Amino acid sequence: MGSVPWKQLLLNALESNAHLKHSSYMQLATVGTNGKPSNRTVVFRGFQDNTDNIQINTDARTRKIEGLKVCSSAEICWYFTDSWEQFRINGNVDIIDGSNPDPLKLQQREKSWFASSLRSRSQYMCPNPGLPCLNEQAQPEISLDPSTGPVDAFCLLILEPDGVDYLNLKNNQRLAFKSRVGDAAKKSWVMERVNP
Amino acid sequence: MGSVPWKQLLLNALESNAHLKHSSYMQLATVGTNGKPSNRTVVFRGFQDNTDNIQINTDARTRKIEGLKVCSSAEICWYFTDSWEQFRINGNVDIIDGSNPDPLKLQQREKSWFASSLRSRSQYMCPNPGLPCLNEQAQPEISLDPSTGPVDAFCLLILEPDGVDYLNLKNNQRLAFKSRVGDAAKKSWVMERVNP
Repeated sequence: MGSVPWKQLLLNALESNAHLKHSSYMQLATVGTNGKPSNRTVVFRGFQDNTDNIQINTDARTRKIEGLKVCSSAEICWYFTDSWEQFRINGNVDIIDGSNPDPLKLQQREKSWFASSLRSRSQYMCPNPGLPCLNEQAQPEISLDPSTGPVDAFCLLILEPDGVDYLNLKNNQRLAFKSRVGDAAKKSWVMERVNP
Repeated sequence: MGSVPWKQLLLNALESNAHLKHSSYMQLATVGTNGKPSNRTVVFRGFQDNTDNIQINTDARTRKIEGLKVCSSAEICWYFTDSWEQFRINGNVDIIDGSNPDPLKLQQREKSWFASSLRSRSQYMCPNPGLPCLNEQAQPEISLDPSTGPVDAFCLLILEPDGVDYLNLKNNQRLAFKSRVGDAAKKSWVMERVNP
């Protein structure tokens, strides 16, 4: 996959900003069921094996899922605060929850579950996110057996990039990458230098 | 305006993260003319006088303008990396370019132009952003007379918030603020604690 030029730029940015906890935080924009844009911080969970697809874990009970079911397009905006680089990555999102009929996808979901910390996993057992908080007290600690598989609320999102806009604020360079699907459905990328 | 509760939270976050250059950077999501979400980093240019409206400067030649003309809704996602606070601010965006018929709005645009650094202002005189870069050489420095008023490409965006979702990752508290328009078109805010 060294042939995907923007991926190498992204891997370099991840490396040069790795000392910052928030370097894996990116903003995911989707369109809500009301047709309005929606935007929130999510955590980059790595690339799907041998691809340039981006993995995100989310709670199936959040509004982004309803929105993505109607409009599967999304755009990530990822700004690296130390290297002053911005990646805007757009594409379609595949929603993989526990009801997915594809055994291979369910396997990926399970893999992503076990790759998360126990603390991350336990969040999927908390009360419905975004709903009124009924208990004014702090929630009790949830103890989760490390061998327990993904719970119902756990959902893996896979964003397959169609276009990437790269901006480097240190040298004021901007590159536009667009995917093309050629013979035998093989995907390739073209790159163009554009005005910042 | 101390009565707008989320505004005080935001002012506090700005203060506690002020040592970070990127604390004024936020991600603005809009819907493109193709109906797909679009997301990019923009700079917070302060609140409009005596309101809770958010000011953003942008280039009138960028795609976000076309998109906002069709769908004026936007959502800002603003993550503060030091205090671990996220603000999601949605609302409608007013586009104020040089052709605006309202003299008061043109005045605001001019004020925002002169509040920008000379370096920021000179960017609006650069070749059309996003178009292919015809000159492989670095662009020559543009010299701009400090007394020159806003150029055609300079555009002020005013986002009038309708809803704010606040998340504090340090204490795991989440608050939802919604605006209500009451008697005499007076806007007020209701707050609810929601599950994170």
